Amino acid sequence: MHDLVIIGGGPAGLSAGIYATRYGLDIIVLEKNEISGQIALTDIVENYPGFTSIKGMELMERFKKHAQDAGVTFQSSEVLNVKNKGTIKIISTDSGELEAKSVIIATGANPRHLGIPGEEEFIGRGVSYCATCDGPFFTNLNVIVVGGGDSAITDALILSKIAKKVTIVHRRDSLRAVKIMQDRAFSANNIEFIWDTVVEEIIGNDGVEKVVLKNVKSGNVKEMPIEGVFIYVGIHPNTGFVEIDKNQSGFIITNDRMETSAAGIYAAGDCRKTLLRQVVTAASDGAVASLAAYEYVAGVRPEQ
Amino acid sequence: MHDLVIIGGGPAGLSAGIYATRYGLDIIVLEKNEISGQIALTDIVENYPGFTSIKGMELMERFKKHAQDAGVTFQSSEVLNVKNKGTIKIISTDSGELEAKSVIIATGANPRHLGIPGEEEFIGRGVSYCATCDGPFFTNLNVIVVGGGDSAITDALILSKIAKKVTIVHRRDSLRAVKIMQDRAFSANNIEFIWDTVVEEIIGNDGVEKVVLKNVKSGNVKEMPIEGVFIYVGIHPNTGFVEIDKNQSGFIITNDRMETSAAGIYAAGDCRKTLLRQVVTAASDGAVASLAAYEYVAGVRPEQ
Repeated sequence: MHDLVIIGGGPAGLSAGIYATRYGLDIIVLEKNEISGQIALTDIVENYPGFTSIKGMELMERFKKHAQDAGVTFQSSEVLNVKNKGTIKIISTDSGELEAKSVIIATGANPRHLGIPGEEEFIGRGVSYCATCDGPFFTNLNVIVVGGGDSAITDALILSKIAKKVTIVHRRDSLRAVKIMQDRAFSANNIEFIWDTVVEEIIGNDGVEKVVLKNVKSGNVKEMPIEGVFIYVGIHPNTGFVEIDKNQSGFIITNDRMETSAAGIYAAGDCRKTLLRQVVTAASDGAVASLAAYEYVAGVRPEQ
Repeated sequence: MHDLVIIGGGPAGLSAGIYATRYGLDIIVLEKNEISGQIALTDIVENYPGFTSIKGMELMERFKKHAQDAGVTFQSSEVLNVKNKGTIKIISTDSGELEAKSVIIATGANPRHLGIPGEEEFIGRGVSYCATCDGPFFTNLNVIVVGGGDSAITDALILSKIAKKVTIVHRRDSLRAVKIMQDRAFSANNIEFIWDTVVEEIIGNDGVEKVVLKNVKSGNVKEMPIEGVFIYVGIHPNTGFVEIDKNQSGFIITNDRMETSAAGIYAAGDCRKTLLRQVVTAASDGAVASLAAYEYVAGVRPEQ
């Protein structure tokens, strides 16, 4: 039986692993992919303190190497279920069962879908949730970006250097991305904006050919010819495999020790209900969760 | 009037600065020294994710450069007083007054003193709180390290490579440093331990010559000849300049948005009441505090 099983190999899980090995715990990190985390799909990260500008993939490779150097053991598995049997937690994976005294859930979150006709049908054929992944397929084509937050504007800027024209379609009349990203978007000469508007349908044959747009103020509906649709309307957490207290969107509820409603089970990073989802906040969560798990497993609670 | 004044140029303050400039706030970071933060005095940092091993000073130089690249403005000033006049905060410094809509306090903490006879008298002449700073003065001499936590053991290991012999004097019968550091200390061949013992007095002439030790279980008192005394018995926060809610040790009380008892004043990093004081947790605090300050100054509260 392991002292601690960490589920997820993104910033929160790797930071938890680094800290847990330093606490002397017998741990294993379960990860679905060789390099995990939404951040690995991000083009450039400019806000992880210590790196003025670094590719998301490169930052995650550095986290992974740090964890390996610290002696973290990895296993490539997808977790199907976590059962809380009191002092023993049973982790069922696609490659067998594990037992642990404690668990840190650091499974992150994935892009939310719009849930409109044509969306699922055209994924990979014009519909995307990641400009870094799919941008190059749209070289010199016209695309829309749906959303007005940090992710939408960050990826609109990436696409503006690849596509012919980028149109940001946002359901409100202003962006909520950070100011520096807004400034860059407003000054890009091939980015345009359609305000107060939602996408109602995605239409095409082999690939996307047009979208149906609806102005939420006037109620007017019109079609717009387009070759690509990039969607950034929030994230949903990967927490379906465990029954613990969550909010209505599925984010796990924790206290400031990262403790969940189940003793010995902790959550860290994007999968928990939190104020800010950044590499540095996820890494901090992972460190705190490992401290809490260490104190739980060792039966101690050092002075703070 | 600035949107935001950040007090302190350590990990929390610099991270807050990086985030705040990205939010488009007009900010200034006040720092006492060119490179700040207790961490800059730390020899090697092995637990800031992304860096397997880096000198504390080098990590802080990277944070500082990142903040400069992001457009953060710095001012070298010591803050004497922060007054909360509702929507305006008045920051009095040794180089004049500043006005701001919001303030982030990231002033960190300093080593706590034992408060015993001889301690203040011999600071810089045998008494130290920082092996990285003062270790080389004790080459091939005998030193004691007082304490049993992470800082004590980390610095004992540094000293073991410089001094002839290091004796760790701890008031308990076990260490509370993380396991990996304990293992290293127990396997060092010039580190010894005196358990259940406190230092009652430091005695010398030009420099330290001996300490008076008392076993807390037997009550026995004895003298021990020694040339250096390194003290690691906790930290106290630098928060005397502001009247907001603190715990009895002076650490500022915040919620998970880093909000203090005064609207528009935030605290981040070692100076606040928190579970874990690490570079990564301080940097995360700074990011969250900047988000909260941005929302306060802009009068918005974006969806989470």
